[in-house]
Amino acid sequence: MLMLTHEARLAALREELKRRGLDGFIVPISDEHMSEYVGDYAQRLAWLTGFGGSAGFAAVTLTHAAIFVDGRYTVQVREQVDGNLFEYRSIPGDTLAGWLTAVSEPGARIAYDPWLHTLAWAEALERALSAHGLALVAAEGNPLDAVWADRPAPSPAAATPYDEALAGRSSADKRAGVADWLAKEGLDAVVIPALDSVAWLLNIRGSDVARTPVALSYVVAHKDGSAELFIAPEKVTPELTRHLGNAVTIRDRAAFEGALGCAFAGKKVALDPDFAVAGIALALKAGGASFAFRQDPTILAKAIKNPAEQQGHRDAQARDGAAVTKFLRWLEINAPSGEVDELGAAAKLAAFRAEDAGLADLSFDTISAAAGHAALPHYKVDEESNIPIPPSSIYLVDSGGQYPGGTTDITRTVWVGPGEPTQEMRDRNTRVLKGHIQIARAVFPQGTAGGQLDVLARQYLWEAGVDYAHGTGHGVGSFLSVHEGPQRIAKPNGGQAGTAAELHAGMILSNEPGYYKPGAFGIRIENLVLVEERVIAGGEGRYLGFETLTFVPLDRKLIDKALLTAEEIAWVDAYHAKVREILSPRLAGEDLAWLERETAPL
Amino acid sequence: MLMLTHEARLAALREELKRRGLDGFIVPISDEHMSEYVGDYAQRLAWLTGFGGSAGFAAVTLTHAAIFVDGRYTVQVREQVDGNLFEYRSIPGDTLAGWLTAVSEPGARIAYDPWLHTLAWAEALERALSAHGLALVAAEGNPLDAVWADRPAPSPAAATPYDEALAGRSSADKRAGVADWLAKEGLDAVVIPALDSVAWLLNIRGSDVARTPVALSYVVAHKDGSAELFIAPEKVTPELTRHLGNAVTIRDRAAFEGALGCAFAGKKVALDPDFAVAGIALALKAGGASFAFRQDPTILAKAIKNPAEQQGHRDAQARDGAAVTKFLRWLEINAPSGEVDELGAAAKLAAFRAEDAGLADLSFDTISAAAGHAALPHYKVDEESNIPIPPSSIYLVDSGGQYPGGTTDITRTVWVGPGEPTQEMRDRNTRVLKGHIQIARAVFPQGTAGGQLDVLARQYLWEAGVDYAHGTGHGVGSFLSVHEGPQRIAKPNGGQAGTAAELHAGMILSNEPGYYKPGAFGIRIENLVLVEERVIAGGEGRYLGFETLTFVPLDRKLIDKALLTAEEIAWVDAYHAKVREILSPRLAGEDLAWLERETAPL
Repeated sequence: MLMLTHEARLAALREELKRRGLDGFIVPISDEHMSEYVGDYAQRLAWLTGFGGSAGFAAVTLTHAAIFVDGRYTVQVREQVDGNLFEYRSIPGDTLAGWLTAVSEPGARIAYDPWLHTLAWAEALERALSAHGLALVAAEGNPLDAVWADRPAPSPAAATPYDEALAGRSSADKRAGVADWLAKEGLDAVVIPALDSVAWLLNIRGSDVARTPVALSYVVAHKDGSAELFIAPEKVTPELTRHLGNAVTIRDRAAFEGALGCAFAGKKVALDPDFAVAGIALALKAGGASFAFRQDPTILAKAIKNPAEQQGHRDAQARDGAAVTKFLRWLEINAPSGEVDELGAAAKLAAFRAEDAGLADLSFDTISAAAGHAALPHYKVDEESNIPIPPSSIYLVDSGGQYPGGTTDITRTVWVGPGEPTQEMRDRNTRVLKGHIQIARAVFPQGTAGGQLDVLARQYLWEAGVDYAHGTGHGVGSFLSVHEGPQRIAKPNGGQAGTAAELHAGMILSNEPGYYKPGAFGIRIENLVLVEERVIAGGEGRYLGFETLTFVPLDRKLIDKALLTAEEIAWVDAYHAKVREILSPRLAGEDLAWLERETAPL
Repeated sequence: MLMLTHEARLAALREELKRRGLDGFIVPISDEHMSEYVGDYAQRLAWLTGFGGSAGFAAVTLTHAAIFVDGRYTVQVREQVDGNLFEYRSIPGDTLAGWLTAVSEPGARIAYDPWLHTLAWAEALERALSAHGLALVAAEGNPLDAVWADRPAPSPAAATPYDEALAGRSSADKRAGVADWLAKEGLDAVVIPALDSVAWLLNIRGSDVARTPVALSYVVAHKDGSAELFIAPEKVTPELTRHLGNAVTIRDRAAFEGALGCAFAGKKVALDPDFAVAGIALALKAGGASFAFRQDPTILAKAIKNPAEQQGHRDAQARDGAAVTKFLRWLEINAPSGEVDELGAAAKLAAFRAEDAGLADLSFDTISAAAGHAALPHYKVDEESNIPIPPSSIYLVDSGGQYPGGTTDITRTVWVGPGEPTQEMRDRNTRVLKGHIQIARAVFPQGTAGGQLDVLARQYLWEAGVDYAHGTGHGVGSFLSVHEGPQRIAKPNGGQAGTAAELHAGMILSNEPGYYKPGAFGIRIENLVLVEERVIAGGEGRYLGFETLTFVPLDRKLIDKALLTAEEIAWVDAYHAKVREILSPRLAGEDLAWLERETAPL
């Protein structure tokens, strides 16, 4: 098939806009579910511009075009996107409304696809544009899709039932919980577009999105405990139909918009403003329904793992820990020669994980970062960026696996010989470790939010006048998204949602402080932790703490024991003893010997 | 003069309401400036009901009356207020609107004094009442004042200039700052009703409010740097007039409402919604002005102390520390006999402070709390509650002084012999001390809010399953309010303003973790700290830390050295060495010997 140049693609889009009487169009990276990761079928920005980053958007008028990216992508956008076709714009400094206003004539009609943006986004942009005489209009059918001849079809993969023994609760029980919530709120139904929420509520999984085992679909849950699943017919197997049972009606995903437009007249329907696209709200409104903005009622229930999910997660961690440990030994032997590159290391780690037949997928693209690359917390290795891991340097690997029992996410930072790390590296790594330990050891009353604990992880870095520009911990799903709300450990004033969310026993979070020296090295130490109840002799009220779930040795060469307190040394030794206990049955020979050496007391 | 019973007062108020055609009235504890502490002339709730607490309100209809207090005053209100006259209601569970709706007929006209409530309060109540057919009306002239025959007159004390050497900036310079702010915001003027803001902006002080050296007055500051001071004529001395100069017009406080109603037609005026009462907004509106809600522009500038204010504060602390130290020695000698009571101890402490001719006032009523009384963090001793300090118990004293250079606030908790404190007392006191030290030693990047640091103070208590139900630190003024915004160290989700406010070098805060065992004992360790810049070798970006300002020995008998780390012991020893250095020149004889013993290394 003929591959169009980006210039031709832009021209074709402009022709389509002209044909429809539109003066401009906005092209985001998003799907109908406001997913964090979107499938190939929805990679419209990459198709139009060549940009390969994970965040950004383009705006195209008949005469101008621009691509907007944040500070992480300033360099990358200039390498990947032709500046003769698209002006480079930097968010949040430059605004979409400002640019559109500057390049458009009054009266211009700027279109957006209402199935790719939230209602709040559309309303804010409409206000900003109308103040300058521009109109924002919802496109009927995406104009870019109309000219994207070789657009990949959405994945046809089957949706599959998720074992109730792993889920720990039946879908009927979960739906009854949602029905109770609807009754309490005085609402008739809730539209759930978030793919992991759909998967959790119905106990189904899929393989439509890379790294996240979900199926493209929507659920409408009703106050009588019944639900409708809107999903492409080719994804539906007899097994799925049996699993869903009589109380869940299976309908064609293509019928979703129509169903919203006719079945809810006079009804009150809950929508989560963060996940429901404008198209859903507009369809409900057109059909005479009213909607109420509420947080998706499955989010908190999904975040609080039940005992079966907790046990599945522990099992997944033991498998995953064995694979990562084998990899670290392999790396220690092979990397000092300088002959292992970042891609090769990531592939080797994936191969160790794949030795476990239970692995379904990685949980995200491995961050395999050598030397200065590790100083970019979100570094993504590809053929162009790939470098050999330099001998005598620090290597950082952030990776995870999707196992049917749980989702893992672990970062280890290791010294690649020969020789010894610098005292600066050991100092910084030890301060990161001290913060990691303080989170791991934290005890706090019920009612505490993640944001309140954040400083515990940063205090020893702050003491040295340094910090890290990312959160300390995010929620993690059970064989679902590696990033999951509502909880989050981060600076409360960082503008990130979730820092005010209360921590509940059963929640899983990452514990991942770091330090990054631009151009030189990067450090991050990440384990997952489970919030658990603590019974304290003489205590008053309910208290919580963390159970660390991840078991892989920490690199002793990067630890300066003199900077650790006796309690911190005891924590490391106890952690390593547990690592040895958990992983020993899964390792043998030289791997086992290496494990024993690496987990000896400091 | 005949003292009316509370029954007669309530009847007189009802007669007055009837006369005015009103069906109800609300009686708060507040003044026209939304002050934290209000003068006797505004103690309307106490006059009407007999209630002596610092928070609460009453609502009176022609047939019903209720008094609303929070959990702190559940017992006290039943002791002080006749339940046959006023139903007891508990906030926040019971609401004013709910009660009024329940006891009133539709169409009832409920009045409030617009000079004693904020506009937001009035608007919220109006919405809630109108939903049930009740009307909220602004009273013209307070109906209670009309029947309060022996109402104290507002204080006639003179307002006095504040030495510019202590203020560190001229009023003209401060007003120029406000004018710049008005220009930037596109506003014409700002009305400043907060008494400490008026005092700071014009470099004046007064003695109209107990414990806070302010003068009852309002300022309107204009965008040309000029200002109008509205103040009772009897408070104006020739010296004040000279000090204020030509750019500040002195007008009668009684003319304030009229001036708002005629001088601002077509102008845009800034109001702080937390401090401007509804009466100000209504008067501006009636006069054709528009108003914009903004934080009082003096608040941040006032909170960031300049070098002269910092030095004045250090000098005040040295004087104050000597007085408290003398008291603690006196207490150690006299209290074990059981013959010192709470009031006597407070009086003795006040006498030691008063030995310094520079002392202007105490900065708040001394919390002198023995044994179980100390478990009430806001315990207020009076003739009825006063008890002898029991031998072999813990005594807590939270107190402060107003010195022309600065305002102090210190809490010490001491063991009253004979004998030794229990291990539980030493454990809890040492955990409180560890948290205090972690705040004192904290280093944090510019941009950090007080709420982010709070956990540092609580972590060792949480480890033991206990906590304290108050904030960790509040702002403190310079010879002004002992409680000052915007900054605050507290739980971010506690609903208290200021935890998200950024800490700036020059701010003064308290550092006061505690522990309270109901009915048994209470512990609090409070020093004031100054935010200062920190230059850190190898650091990246701007960092801040705290300089401890308060110098009084900590009680060694309550410290369990085994619970302290080497760093914490070093902190206590260094602190005590500094206490010795600062106070030695101010003490002699036995006092000096005692100081040296109490400040020896642990």
